[in-house]
Amino acid sequence: MSLKSELNEKKLFIDNEIDRYLPAETEYPDIIFKAMRYSVFAGGKRLRPIMLLAVCQMLGGDIKKASPFACAIEMIHTYSLIHDDLPALDNDNFRRGRLTSHKAFGEDIAILAGDALLGHAFEVMSKAVCDFKDMNCALAMYDIAYGAGVNGMLTGQVVDVISDGKKIDKNTLDFIHANKTAAMIQGAFKAGAHIAGADDKTVRSLDMAALKIGVAFQIQDDILDVTGTFEEIGKPVFSDAKNNKTTYVTLLGIEKSKERVKNFSEEAIDILKTFGEKADFLVELTEYLIDRKK
Amino acid sequence: MSLKSELNEKKLFIDNEIDRYLPAETEYPDIIFKAMRYSVFAGGKRLRPIMLLAVCQMLGGDIKKASPFACAIEMIHTYSLIHDDLPALDNDNFRRGRLTSHKAFGEDIAILAGDALLGHAFEVMSKAVCDFKDMNCALAMYDIAYGAGVNGMLTGQVVDVISDGKKIDKNTLDFIHANKTAAMIQGAFKAGAHIAGADDKTVRSLDMAALKIGVAFQIQDDILDVTGTFEEIGKPVFSDAKNNKTTYVTLLGIEKSKERVKNFSEEAIDILKTFGEKADFLVELTEYLIDRKK
Repeated sequence: MSLKSELNEKKLFIDNEIDRYLPAETEYPDIIFKAMRYSVFAGGKRLRPIMLLAVCQMLGGDIKKASPFACAIEMIHTYSLIHDDLPALDNDNFRRGRLTSHKAFGEDIAILAGDALLGHAFEVMSKAVCDFKDMNCALAMYDIAYGAGVNGMLTGQVVDVISDGKKIDKNTLDFIHANKTAAMIQGAFKAGAHIAGADDKTVRSLDMAALKIGVAFQIQDDILDVTGTFEEIGKPVFSDAKNNKTTYVTLLGIEKSKERVKNFSEEAIDILKTFGEKADFLVELTEYLIDRKK
Repeated sequence: MSLKSELNEKKLFIDNEIDRYLPAETEYPDIIFKAMRYSVFAGGKRLRPIMLLAVCQMLGGDIKKASPFACAIEMIHTYSLIHDDLPALDNDNFRRGRLTSHKAFGEDIAILAGDALLGHAFEVMSKAVCDFKDMNCALAMYDIAYGAGVNGMLTGQVVDVISDGKKIDKNTLDFIHANKTAAMIQGAFKAGAHIAGADDKTVRSLDMAALKIGVAFQIQDDILDVTGTFEEIGKPVFSDAKNNKTTYVTLLGIEKSKERVKNFSEEAIDILKTFGEKADFLVELTEYLIDRKK
């Protein structure tokens, strides 16, 4: 099977699973469930849940056990996008080619839809911990909470916000990338490994691979902002430049940025290859992330 | 010891504990930790954590085990206040006599501080589940997630928001109260009981008591909005009336509302008394909630 069709198959699996974990949009009060689903089913690539499941599978873990955690990580990712887009933050009108949540539902419902997705992710995960009665699942939940929180994504977003319109140095940009983007990918890798019952050494080595993939992924995002088209990336191009945002591209130029993406990806792949051919899918996925157009 | 000094002592205990679970405000990026602490240490009564600890203690549970969950429930309560106060929602400038988070730190940081507190609550709880390796703690985490989420507080807030400025009937108001306020108090009671290892029957009966206390508490809040002073309640009085908000007072009048508070409290106390004199503190607390001035 080609990587594209494998990714598509996995995306469909996650779409089906996540559908089961979200309240139906006919429930009362329907507007909040509509808003949650509007953003969750907006054509996301499901990268984080795909990674979580792939790591778990690579290590011989149970996909059924991993599934609620994969869905939860996508809910958390979606909450962060909804809140990032708000007028008080990035003030974006488009995301993935459609209106952002606050444009479609109003700012009040968008704030609450983000809150709802964050809270629901933890409701789904804590129910899974109780249902499976498995402490490895509790570790996975902590991995995801840690990646999303004040030691991870949230703090990256804060530094991004307070750096807005300011010239920032490479250290600060590294901090933003490592936290805002890589921390959740690290959460996905560690959670997948813990659910499979991996030992500490394995978890640490996958954590390192995930950090490198996450940073490469975010630099690639910065590159696409100047080289992509609206159709490809689903939002206006040059939005970083228009917002006077410091990115790897403004700091190092496109060529050096591309080089960094390549180096980080290769370092991640070297780690993944220590797991043998079971890591093939994750290696291919990492290679694909360097060449993606959106 | 009088109830007042017992409440004070418990409040101090929780203040100390919660301080340990929050990042220091000197950490980088300090503004988010300052904002989290600003709202957490704004003079809240710590009712929900006090209830959680009291239920656990009544049933012979370990307070050390319950403490991270008590702190987490207060973080979640605080996040909900920060987001409720935002311009897109209630647009309140004052809370507990001080500026609301968005007035003190800006709207972007206020949104993120709320997100941070919600996420951190689950980070603290999932770490506690892993550290104690105790499935009863996982149940407590689920109780709190359930109370805060789309089957509880969050949904109550949504219906409150979409009812804004509309005439609503008593059923809808009951729905708002049961979800927006009571659900988290139910979460506190159930979590405290589960941590103490209570059986299902005990948890169900305490859940019922908590629902009644929660509804009584919220009606009392509506009453205080028209009978209190700014100094007593820490925010402008008549704010519900000014916002054309339907409350128990506008729907039934003050006397009938007071009667309902009394009835619900008494029903809750009847349940609590089945636990004998170990329930004395919770009974006294419930009686106090009827007579409170703020």
